Amino acid sequence: MSFKTLVSKQAALLDKDLMGPEIGFTLEQLMELAGLSVAQAVLKEFPRSQRTKSQVLVLAGPGNNGGDGLVCARLLKLFGFKPVVYYPKHNTKAPFFSKLVKQLKFFKVPVLNTDDDWLRYLNPNDTVCVVDALFGFSFKPPVREPFGGVLNQLRQAQDQIPIVSVDVPTGWDVDEGPVEPNCIVPKVLVSLTVPKPCALKIDPLETQHYVGGRFIPAEFANKYGFEPFAYENADQVVKLVPE
Amino acid sequence: MSFKTLVSKQAALLDKDLMGPEIGFTLEQLMELAGLSVAQAVLKEFPRSQRTKSQVLVLAGPGNNGGDGLVCARLLKLFGFKPVVYYPKHNTKAPFFSKLVKQLKFFKVPVLNTDDDWLRYLNPNDTVCVVDALFGFSFKPPVREPFGGVLNQLRQAQDQIPIVSVDVPTGWDVDEGPVEPNCIVPKVLVSLTVPKPCALKIDPLETQHYVGGRFIPAEFANKYGFEPFAYENADQVVKLVPE
Repeated sequence: MSFKTLVSKQAALLDKDLMGPEIGFTLEQLMELAGLSVAQAVLKEFPRSQRTKSQVLVLAGPGNNGGDGLVCARLLKLFGFKPVVYYPKHNTKAPFFSKLVKQLKFFKVPVLNTDDDWLRYLNPNDTVCVVDALFGFSFKPPVREPFGGVLNQLRQAQDQIPIVSVDVPTGWDVDEGPVEPNCIVPKVLVSLTVPKPCALKIDPLETQHYVGGRFIPAEFANKYGFEPFAYENADQVVKLVPE
Repeated sequence: MSFKTLVSKQAALLDKDLMGPEIGFTLEQLMELAGLSVAQAVLKEFPRSQRTKSQVLVLAGPGNNGGDGLVCARLLKLFGFKPVVYYPKHNTKAPFFSKLVKQLKFFKVPVLNTDDDWLRYLNPNDTVCVVDALFGFSFKPPVREPFGGVLNQLRQAQDQIPIVSVDVPTGWDVDEGPVEPNCIVPKVLVSLTVPKPCALKIDPLETQHYVGGRFIPAEFANKYGFEPFAYENADQVVKLVPE
């Protein structure tokens, strides 16, 4: 696979730029579009015609990656799935996150907390896939509890239930890839805006790779050293196909 | 055509509900999705394969309908169009609107003010369509300047340049339809969330009708007396086809 990537530090700068005083995007806008990308990738990989079940388990972490997951879950409900969210550690810094949880309740999407039995949803009989929205490009090891335990469970289940990772597979080093022992292997990776270097370490035979987060103009992509991706029509994701 | 509609007062209540303390949507989220609907409808009506020009003139009013237009213009740029925005009366109540204008500058989309010559863009040689995002369901007659003059120009140009109206064709009574003399006749109407009664007054031979604003669950639609529309896949609009 050949594509440009952005190391974690650069990705953080790009994000800061987008929400800075000059460009003026809000977190609400970017998160809505990012979550829509992920939901669309799930729909493309698991279309209604090719499945008999509809449950999706969304694992949402405490940061912005988790917020993308919360949006994704709401949109998956609109797209005909039955999402269940496990959100053990709430984001308490940005008040917007509690609004995202309210919106999920409005859509009758269950949001499970630490004490709830999320493992009953990690069940291949009912569950189409798991959306891994635990940690994104700001992740620094080590994985702390309860997320270490969550990752253990995912590893055991991943042969029966495909994992869709948002931006970075949780536990992977953003820039180096799966350097820890026993890293999860997602069946789908949805890179946001531009792939991070860890995406170069996926095996295209194992992992389908999408890019989403369609919200920057060509000149801005060029400034960060990459070309815009070839989205079609109004699609919010584009699948990168190995050459 | 047979479809449920929501009178202006009810539409205002629904909007208030969506952004109220229980449901918790933000204006930023809903506007992003509404603008995306309109941009997708424009792309569906004027696909690249069927046109030789790419300029779109977006007329943005001072309220939320105008905000939908500002978002739409940005997304049209991403979809390969060359949008130009005429925004003669800025929204000064919600700070988010100035952010939307910044985002347009970031995308190098010209934003024209009162003194600028917007009429040169109302030119059938270059312009695919005009997006009429002047006034929505809160509109109360009469049309004040400069919008009366804008409507006059649109009326004269509408046989050469198709108008895409957002939610309500500007100048139409939201509940009664085109009761004023010389109302514009849009080629496309994009109703948001649910059509307003004026949509029953369009002639399906003259006006293509879409519904967008895909952001409410079935139970909530039912509460307001209508059924969800039959969106396909991840589409943000659905075309209503006369029976």
